[in-house]
Amino acid sequence: MLYFTVTTISILFLPTTLLASETVSTQAFNIPDTLWVLLCAILVFLMQAGFKTLETGLVQEEHRSSVGSKNLMDLVAGVLGFFLVGFGFMFGTSKYGIIGFEPDLFVGQNLHNGDLTIPGIVFFLFQLVFAGTALTIVSGAMSGRTGVVPYFIGSLVTAVIIYPLFGHWAWGNLFYNNNMAWLANMGFMDFAGSTVVHTLGACVGIVGMIMVGPRIGRFDHEGKPKSMKASDYSYSILGVMLLWIGWWGFNGGSTLTFTADVFEIILNTNIAGASACFSAFFYCYFFQDRGDLIEKMMGGALTGLVAITACCNVVSPLSSLIIGLLSGVIHNVGYDLILKVFKLDDPVGAIPVHGFGGIFGTLCVALFGKQELLVLPRWEQLLIQMIGIEVCVTFTVILSIVMFKLIKMFYGLRVSPEQEIKGMLMGRSMPEEYYDVEEEMKVR
Amino acid sequence: MLYFTVTTISILFLPTTLLASETVSTQAFNIPDTLWVLLCAILVFLMQAGFKTLETGLVQEEHRSSVGSKNLMDLVAGVLGFFLVGFGFMFGTSKYGIIGFEPDLFVGQNLHNGDLTIPGIVFFLFQLVFAGTALTIVSGAMSGRTGVVPYFIGSLVTAVIIYPLFGHWAWGNLFYNNNMAWLANMGFMDFAGSTVVHTLGACVGIVGMIMVGPRIGRFDHEGKPKSMKASDYSYSILGVMLLWIGWWGFNGGSTLTFTADVFEIILNTNIAGASACFSAFFYCYFFQDRGDLIEKMMGGALTGLVAITACCNVVSPLSSLIIGLLSGVIHNVGYDLILKVFKLDDPVGAIPVHGFGGIFGTLCVALFGKQELLVLPRWEQLLIQMIGIEVCVTFTVILSIVMFKLIKMFYGLRVSPEQEIKGMLMGRSMPEEYYDVEEEMKVR
Amino acid sequence: MLYFTVTTISILFLPTTLLASETVSTQAFNIPDTLWVLLCAILVFLMQAGFKTLETGLVQEEHRSSVGSKNLMDLVAGVLGFFLVGFGFMFGTSKYGIIGFEPDLFVGQNLHNGDLTIPGIVFFLFQLVFAGTALTIVSGAMSGRTGVVPYFIGSLVTAVIIYPLFGHWAWGNLFYNNNMAWLANMGFMDFAGSTVVHTLGACVGIVGMIMVGPRIGRFDHEGKPKSMKASDYSYSILGVMLLWIGWWGFNGGSTLTFTADVFEIILNTNIAGASACFSAFFYCYFFQDRGDLIEKMMGGALTGLVAITACCNVVSPLSSLIIGLLSGVIHNVGYDLILKVFKLDDPVGAIPVHGFGGIFGTLCVALFGKQELLVLPRWEQLLIQMIGIEVCVTFTVILSIVMFKLIKMFYGLRVSPEQEIKGMLMGRSMPEEYYDVEEEMKVR
Repeated sequence: MLYFTVTTISILFLPTTLLASETVSTQAFNIPDTLWVLLCAILVFLMQAGFKTLETGLVQEEHRSSVGSKNLMDLVAGVLGFFLVGFGFMFGTSKYGIIGFEPDLFVGQNLHNGDLTIPGIVFFLFQLVFAGTALTIVSGAMSGRTGVVPYFIGSLVTAVIIYPLFGHWAWGNLFYNNNMAWLANMGFMDFAGSTVVHTLGACVGIVGMIMVGPRIGRFDHEGKPKSMKASDYSYSILGVMLLWIGWWGFNGGSTLTFTADVFEIILNTNIAGASACFSAFFYCYFFQDRGDLIEKMMGGALTGLVAITACCNVVSPLSSLIIGLLSGVIHNVGYDLILKVFKLDDPVGAIPVHGFGGIFGTLCVALFGKQELLVLPRWEQLLIQMIGIEVCVTFTVILSIVMFKLIKMFYGLRVSPEQEIKGMLMGRSMPEEYYDVEEEMKVR
Repeated sequence: MLYFTVTTISILFLPTTLLASETVSTQAFNIPDTLWVLLCAILVFLMQAGFKTLETGLVQEEHRSSVGSKNLMDLVAGVLGFFLVGFGFMFGTSKYGIIGFEPDLFVGQNLHNGDLTIPGIVFFLFQLVFAGTALTIVSGAMSGRTGVVPYFIGSLVTAVIIYPLFGHWAWGNLFYNNNMAWLANMGFMDFAGSTVVHTLGACVGIVGMIMVGPRIGRFDHEGKPKSMKASDYSYSILGVMLLWIGWWGFNGGSTLTFTADVFEIILNTNIAGASACFSAFFYCYFFQDRGDLIEKMMGGALTGLVAITACCNVVSPLSSLIIGLLSGVIHNVGYDLILKVFKLDDPVGAIPVHGFGGIFGTLCVALFGKQELLVLPRWEQLLIQMIGIEVCVTFTVILSIVMFKLIKMFYGLRVSPEQEIKGMLMGRSMPEEYYDVEEEMKVR
Repeated sequence: MLYFTVTTISILFLPTTLLASETVSTQAFNIPDTLWVLLCAILVFLMQAGFKTLETGLVQEEHRSSVGSKNLMDLVAGVLGFFLVGFGFMFGTSKYGIIGFEPDLFVGQNLHNGDLTIPGIVFFLFQLVFAGTALTIVSGAMSGRTGVVPYFIGSLVTAVIIYPLFGHWAWGNLFYNNNMAWLANMGFMDFAGSTVVHTLGACVGIVGMIMVGPRIGRFDHEGKPKSMKASDYSYSILGVMLLWIGWWGFNGGSTLTFTADVFEIILNTNIAGASACFSAFFYCYFFQDRGDLIEKMMGGALTGLVAITACCNVVSPLSSLIIGLLSGVIHNVGYDLILKVFKLDDPVGAIPVHGFGGIFGTLCVALFGKQELLVLPRWEQLLIQMIGIEVCVTFTVILSIVMFKLIKMFYGLRVSPEQEIKGMLMGRSMPEEYYDVEEEMKVR
């Protein structure tokens, strides 16, 4: 009887769905897949909060407000830029494999389902938060001396041009299966974006970082790095945890379906994060200067998560453990390299995490992936992975240089030294004696 | 074919559920709808953390503990008040359309499914966190000078009388479709609560704010506002992000089903939030005093989210963009109006966000809604929307005046000036030299 | 019959699943159950962030970094330890009811489904975050004077031996229904872990707390507790809210299925948390020293949540209200008892919350449970509950003593007094004049 009732309800139910969808879309969708990807989009959105928390904890007290503001503004840039044209450029019908172009997908006019089993809007939301992640990596790399407005312009350009273009090459066939996406067609595998999201973000970040220059007081006269006080490590650790949670969705949702694959992916993600945190902590503890211990512990965990992102669907849990252990060490070495050899001022350690971790993870697809899950024989796969990384780095670096040059020329990138020292004087957060309306008006 | 598959799946799905439900409830429920609304309830619960974070960042250092405590206590008031009687008053069988009354729904005795496809308890949980949201708006408006106990009493009264009564009029037919709910029956449309939750909360807040008076030192002798140092803007931005995530559930779950509507609703919500943040930031940047830039950026985003709340199910993504852009400007103008013209001390900017945003959003239903989705012709709809707002404001303001008068008379609303200046001396968070047990005992 | 149904469902479902699952697992799973438990695992993971936030807010400014680091490192210990062998010890085929042992479950080699309707990996992930919760309780209890490395070793031992062993006795039959788990077979009921997770964590914590001794300056010469400044109560309240949200999953997911039970469980959880917060606040307000008001309000809420954990599936909402009200008072009394009578230095109040709350909740199964849902007649049930608690306490305390003795002997537990006073000098978070590389190298 009950069984019968339930059955009747279910049957009666579906009409409601359909009626409602009339005005929106008459396309059907797979319910479990949709619920899962939507949940994952929410988790990836949470990563915005994670990045903000991580970054504000790592910069000095007086820059917390401006770094936080940039994190919010790049979310805005991501949402608007990707909504207006970015999504259409990335996933629309391909023009010669170079760029997508489909007016229906611009300004959310008709976000249909493409070839997916989930609604087009859910796919859009999921991709949107991915774009937001790529953008927000940059805010960390350039924090503490870049103005909010030039940063916003840079984010917008990245969201409408740089990210969708490279994204089209590597992932352009996700929405239409037969869309031309030349890197994907060559066999380049980047499951959830070690290269597409992380390495790309790091490349924009490193160009920005070099062009804006180091913070005042970061290096002494001989070019040796000086200690700059982080405002609150504990707050940053909250950020790491939020990011870690978000990664369940970042990797787990990239299947775009709710299948048995999802679970092993999430398992691998967690194992890699934990083992990378472990190796980074103890490598630093025993072999490096402990003054950076907390930075390395946190960055290590994130590097493991970044690295597993490309390969979590093709490696075993045991391989994930090994990838994680290596990632932690790679992060620590990369961290010192950036700071002490290249003498770049990366306030939140974005480059070792997203750049080194992203590249390493993309290579791990070929190095650790189960052969039967790879597109090509292992060594060919490795070659193609290297080509993909190379293309990403070259393309992104060139476009970023052009972009930042133009911003610098027409607007200026950096705040004035007074503002940098006092904190970017936005809002009333500084002691009143520092408050100076004239100075305030010069904030860029 | 897909339709057929989905139907088959739904039918085959149900047996598992049934076995377990024997002891609790023999009523059936639709699984995807239930999973979705439950997930949304969790997201709305997260908004409590968002409000707390937003508000504590915006008040001065010495008031962080007391504002946080109030946020926790109003959650408690909401849960208990709504559980004991509020839910029954709001959704129970209507008495003459004025108030619901159904003992089964009191004290969670028998939270049956009503006419819903989801379990009554899940509907209760979802509504519960909505009530909590309305209450918590008040804590921000009155922060920095109101005692915890009088505030708790006010929250409890709001949760058991003010919110359920007006809620009954506007939403009383959600649980029983044919329940008399006079505003809803007239055609008043407030999808997820721009009026029911936000305007109502703002009205209680503005009355409380006026009756408790401005904080010491907020205005100078000539009545001009003086700068008060926010404790941590960056922390508030975390709050904005958590709220934004919560809004996916706040609006997305208000369908109470998992249909294709959900996706466009969430899309609209995000677009409105982002565009409002954009317009508020740049409007302030170019046309207003930049001293409040961060407040306006954050408040702008939230105003867009509040405004889209009423209309996200009837407008297009493009309209959402426009609604958002307007919301940002409305917020900024409202912010200055409250502070500089009305000279009210609204420490966290609750009134421009929830009051102005709520009213504007409720009107947008008629102004931007697709005609075929409106209950009435556009101009009649607009009239009814205005009537609904008018009823909400009048009713809430009158009851709030009575409530706060009584609290003031029998208990007192405001802490002593010493406590206000030193921070409300709860807990051991102040330097020991300030610690004074006698003073402590006077904390209200 | 059920088996058959599930199988049928799974089969019909699988077409999508199968293609992908070939290499991972060919086992079927119930989709709604799986989605739900996975969502709950995510929520419980969020509790790691909640604990971190709660604890760092309650310790002094200079210990925030080290407490946060410990929270991250015990997550790492939990993930690695449980992944390598802990899960196999806890849920593998039982050896004489003492310990599970199944190489397939070690190092995630083959996390099959056991007798569950959800994938083995999802069950692993859910159990993993439970183990993490037990570990993190210890970090609070020992905060402010314990080194990170000895703490990490302790966490690892707890994750691979103490937690899995006792867990095997109480929950060893969750994965294989006919696995020998002697406490469960006797009728011991601990639905979501008041004893298995919370009391166990508290027991490890209290042993650690005693062996490491109180923080410098916690008690005066006469042994009276002195006030120690918490770094940020407001931040801790955020932690309480995150924990509260996480508890929806902690209790709601412990059904391991998505049935009607879930909803009443979540309802009960919320009611108990709110009423405990209410009673703790007002009991302290009217009858105790208000100097600890915020600690007691927060701890009260958590105690209610801990207490309802064991019994949320067998009590009514009204009983939950009563259990909550009692929990708040028990917490407050326990708090004063630990501090003033036993003179233990429990910086974040872990023992009254998890110890007292855990024991009380386990007893509530028999005291408040509906008889028809209990395994045994009420008084026999009560006896068995007491036996279970007794076993947990005795076993855990003995093993913890051995563990901490060994760590103390071979490595040392406590940091040097200089480090304790200045904060554990990890990272660059202290003022530069305090920065001393030699001192740094002694950090344990």
